[in-house]
Amino acid sequence: MKTVLIGFGFIGRSLVNTIRKKIDILKKKKIDFKLVGIGELAGYAYDDDGLNLDYVSSLNDLSKHSESFFKGKTSVELIEKSEADLLIETTPTNFLSGEPGLTHIKTALDIGIHVVTSNKGPLVLAFKKLSNLAEKRGVELKYEATVAGALPIFTMVKNCLQGDTIQKISGILNGTANYILSKMYFDGTSFDLALKEAQERGITEKDYTYDVEGIDATCKVVILANSLMGRNVKFNDVDRVGISRVTPEAVSLAKRSGYTIKLIGTIDKDLEVTPKLIPENHPLCVHGTLNALHIETDLAREITIIGYGAGRETVSAMVNDIISVSNSNNRIK
Amino acid sequence: MKTVLIGFGFIGRSLVNTIRKKIDILKKKKIDFKLVGIGELAGYAYDDDGLNLDYVSSLNDLSKHSESFFKGKTSVELIEKSEADLLIETTPTNFLSGEPGLTHIKTALDIGIHVVTSNKGPLVLAFKKLSNLAEKRGVELKYEATVAGALPIFTMVKNCLQGDTIQKISGILNGTANYILSKMYFDGTSFDLALKEAQERGITEKDYTYDVEGIDATCKVVILANSLMGRNVKFNDVDRVGISRVTPEAVSLAKRSGYTIKLIGTIDKDLEVTPKLIPENHPLCVHGTLNALHIETDLAREITIIGYGAGRETVSAMVNDIISVSNSNNRIK
Repeated sequence: MKTVLIGFGFIGRSLVNTIRKKIDILKKKKIDFKLVGIGELAGYAYDDDGLNLDYVSSLNDLSKHSESFFKGKTSVELIEKSEADLLIETTPTNFLSGEPGLTHIKTALDIGIHVVTSNKGPLVLAFKKLSNLAEKRGVELKYEATVAGALPIFTMVKNCLQGDTIQKISGILNGTANYILSKMYFDGTSFDLALKEAQERGITEKDYTYDVEGIDATCKVVILANSLMGRNVKFNDVDRVGISRVTPEAVSLAKRSGYTIKLIGTIDKDLEVTPKLIPENHPLCVHGTLNALHIETDLAREITIIGYGAGRETVSAMVNDIISVSNSNNRIK
Repeated sequence: MKTVLIGFGFIGRSLVNTIRKKIDILKKKKIDFKLVGIGELAGYAYDDDGLNLDYVSSLNDLSKHSESFFKGKTSVELIEKSEADLLIETTPTNFLSGEPGLTHIKTALDIGIHVVTSNKGPLVLAFKKLSNLAEKRGVELKYEATVAGALPIFTMVKNCLQGDTIQKISGILNGTANYILSKMYFDGTSFDLALKEAQERGITEKDYTYDVEGIDATCKVVILANSLMGRNVKFNDVDRVGISRVTPEAVSLAKRSGYTIKLIGTIDKDLEVTPKLIPENHPLCVHGTLNALHIETDLAREITIIGYGAGRETVSAMVNDIISVSNSNNRIK
């Protein structure tokens, strides 16, 4: 499995570090993982025999990989020259242009390279286009990490609910907004104070409105709707209300009646992201930075899945995607 | 997919009825489902061209299927003569002998027939033996419905957490016990009264001690441990305490401190089923007849899955198993 990785930030590094530790487990699964290139802004590291994962993991600055670092070269060049089986794309999400991820993913799919990505931007902007391209080229496009981090929502629906018809999905899709609302619920603090604490803990996006105005959650609603419910929707098809105007009084009033206020993304006939009253005893009512997805189907009726939506745990979803792609790649060969 | 079904009780009938309604969806997935035989105590119905699912579903008594009913013939004979690809086994669970399911499953696997079952007994008594036999014969043995009904725990761990190492599993594995404890928690009733209400609702096993003394949950712990954590354990390896001695006072005391009492099955270093204090805000704290499983892993850290553990919803898991088996069967052919 000749692989190139684009993006060597927190997720990219965590992934390399995890694969390094799990290389024997992968071998047992008959996956011969070989990372031949890592691309980032300044250039790329490349070794056709496979980069040394221990060494690469130890570098703070990839360009210090003196022998193998090609300064000034672009990630697109890396993808094109690599003859890789798999591209792992972990550059930061850009909701407006999708770049640079969109070009990376398109380039790879177009020349028949499987893609595993954690980058929401390209999927929000061009889900249909990219999945059609993948299908046409006979390669896989996997994006488990893009929605609700470690929660395997896409793989679960596709592999565990094959006979079910999905009727509705609703969920807590942004851990930071949930942290703020939980803080308000348990401590009675104001939105501003809770936001400040979230920022101090380093769990908000650089632009915190992405979390609190439901922009991030909206992107996830778009991906869920397109991937799991056969829609073809865009960002603006989602009705969106954030949590910045939720008052401590509203939270306390809800609490006295056995309810919490949660920022809920819903994929039903209509699509929305909006604060909703959730009964304290409902499975969706989880606190802190947890994410939760509630799936309504014709057979299982309702299934809820809860876990961490961001951070290091996201690597679980990416490793699973990589193993799935390798398995189907081995099958074809 | 030439199929025989053994057991035509609630689950068997619900399954036939569901497949009948979903036959077009199955065809779209390139699954040509043909039910050639149904076995029950009095004999079996058989038609090599496929039984008419509409007609079979409409019968209260299978032996009324006059043309095709072979009275006095055994299900083992049906399996042996059928040349089927798949056996669906839905006879009632017997924890002591595993029969008649154990013989049905053994017979099928031994002559190279895939098995999908909802019957816990054979798996509790002979998990290792049956999985080894399936492997040796190159066929699938699927049992998603045996633990936590509609919750796809086995498929989820095997398909969605392929890179994760499972460290611990704990869960609410019996909906009836959870119903009783929820009743005590919300209404302050005694165990006896809550049990009576569960019996009136028809949600207890014939022998209610299976639910309240943790016997049913223990069986599920055994299957989870053997299937997902590589153990080779039996019923008696699980420390078991039921809920019949949980008092309203204990429940109320817990409640005042923000806790609930739940019957929790745990697969860790040791195996146990016992009432435990669960914080009200913990994802495992779900009420009514819901089941919940909490999985701890090295990468995803913790994932909880919640849903219905018994009843019609169980069919979701069985249909998924059938589709998975069909897909791998198609691949081999």
